[in-house]
Amino acid sequence: MAQIAFLGLGIMGGPMAAHLAKAGHTMTVYNRTLAKSTAWVAKHAGKMAKTPALAAQSADIVFACVGADRDVEDVTTGPDGAFSAMTTGSLFVDHTTIGADTARQLAIVARQHGIRFLDAPVSGGQAGAENGQLTIMVGGDTVDFDRAEPVMQAYAKRIGHMGPSGAGQLTKMVNQICIAGVVQGLAEAVHFALEAGLDSTQVFDVLSKGAAQSWQMENRTATMADGKFDFGFAVDWMRKDLGLVLDEARRMGVTLPVTALVDHFYSDVQKLGGKRQDTSSLIRRFRR
Amino acid sequence: MAQIAFLGLGIMGGPMAAHLAKAGHTMTVYNRTLAKSTAWVAKHAGKMAKTPALAAQSADIVFACVGADRDVEDVTTGPDGAFSAMTTGSLFVDHTTIGADTARQLAIVARQHGIRFLDAPVSGGQAGAENGQLTIMVGGDTVDFDRAEPVMQAYAKRIGHMGPSGAGQLTKMVNQICIAGVVQGLAEAVHFALEAGLDSTQVFDVLSKGAAQSWQMENRTATMADGKFDFGFAVDWMRKDLGLVLDEARRMGVTLPVTALVDHFYSDVQKLGGKRQDTSSLIRRFRR
Repeated sequence: MAQIAFLGLGIMGGPMAAHLAKAGHTMTVYNRTLAKSTAWVAKHAGKMAKTPALAAQSADIVFACVGADRDVEDVTTGPDGAFSAMTTGSLFVDHTTIGADTARQLAIVARQHGIRFLDAPVSGGQAGAENGQLTIMVGGDTVDFDRAEPVMQAYAKRIGHMGPSGAGQLTKMVNQICIAGVVQGLAEAVHFALEAGLDSTQVFDVLSKGAAQSWQMENRTATMADGKFDFGFAVDWMRKDLGLVLDEARRMGVTLPVTALVDHFYSDVQKLGGKRQDTSSLIRRFRR
Repeated sequence: MAQIAFLGLGIMGGPMAAHLAKAGHTMTVYNRTLAKSTAWVAKHAGKMAKTPALAAQSADIVFACVGADRDVEDVTTGPDGAFSAMTTGSLFVDHTTIGADTARQLAIVARQHGIRFLDAPVSGGQAGAENGQLTIMVGGDTVDFDRAEPVMQAYAKRIGHMGPSGAGQLTKMVNQICIAGVVQGLAEAVHFALEAGLDSTQVFDVLSKGAAQSWQMENRTATMADGKFDFGFAVDWMRKDLGLVLDEARRMGVTLPVTALVDHFYSDVQKLGGKRQDTSSLIRRFRR
């Protein structure tokens, strides 16, 4: 069992840290809003710290799951950040979805501090974090992956080592590109089916056995047809991720016309009040 | 066992008619190119006829699986078409993917001839026809569905009664809208993954356990990455179907922006020589 620090106790990080505590690791947690740390230590075995540096100073592995690039920079290289406090040879694993370039830069800065860094964004959402069934996409050196992998098993159903630093983030971007296409297709399909007077439950029951099948079809078309979106992965977070995707695509000189279009449609959904709604609320852009 | 006529012995109709012969029905087949009828009767139990009318005149059920709207009109209401020859109360089942309005019109004309009509487009492709594993989406009256359904079991894994005349065609359109979105997302995703230097096999292996999963991801990303498209459902046929979708959407006043865009991209793929290639060749529009 390891000495572990966990930075960020949100809807993802909170349950992930809880799985680590349950697995028997010695936990020190940090959260920007102190009340969340207080609540976490009241429920789980572990201590709280008032800064990332204090949480990280005696840890073998420091995990982070915070909001965006800026938040990761704050808890790593910012004032009272973890990097300066971590012991030589210790490992920082970032579960936040951030830019691949930010991840690569942090890996370089980590090395300058004598520590190791993995980018390890996750998919599976709040339910996956709570059930310990996340998919983790990891970028970095093999020796570091081999060290983190058995620990991350506490909350993962699938952990892939995708390549060098940044490769975890790039894989997460591929995931979001796929979802953008699938959900847009379903939004148009559900809209068409309803306008055509079809029974959409029956339609997607029949179609889900064939070449049009998708996880989103099986899990989201019923709620899309009913206009229910108060669950799942929020539009605000999808837009953040699509922003990272489109930045990276521009950097690589890759055109992603439908991903770009879907990003615009999500912007419309935000204006319609869908900021915190599930990504399947994309259909609101077409059925108002 | 029934007296059955089958009109159209192409890559779909040929094996479908063969399954009916194997099930023990008394078969009479017709094909525009006579050589296909000759070849079919040489291999299977049944007779051939030189016109749709001659094939259909003593049939309980007449099936058709031909090219497009015009071909269905030819074999039903054209000179030597089946409708005038069919006996009162017999049933015409059209497996061709055509416009919902054409299907509705044919159902009306059939009624004027004292016969019954079902629109019953299929999905599952050539492999599905050969293995008897098609999905069939049926529009028309329940009494007619109940009569055709046990016969169609010979080549189906799933048969759904979707509603009144036209509803089978509309459901098939929903299927193609979903596929357009999914395949476009994957084309962008595979392109992005390859340009980012990721191992696409590994990427889609990891992602296929989560919310981005689709049949197309599981069955087409490896060949997309390898640039192999000499199989599957051809771009020419997809464009025909998307034309029907976009016509129907215009009629209903429904906007399908990504379906329309993907139709344009498939037009580019046709110009690149991809007319007979699988729909996954959509990626050629982005990787030339």
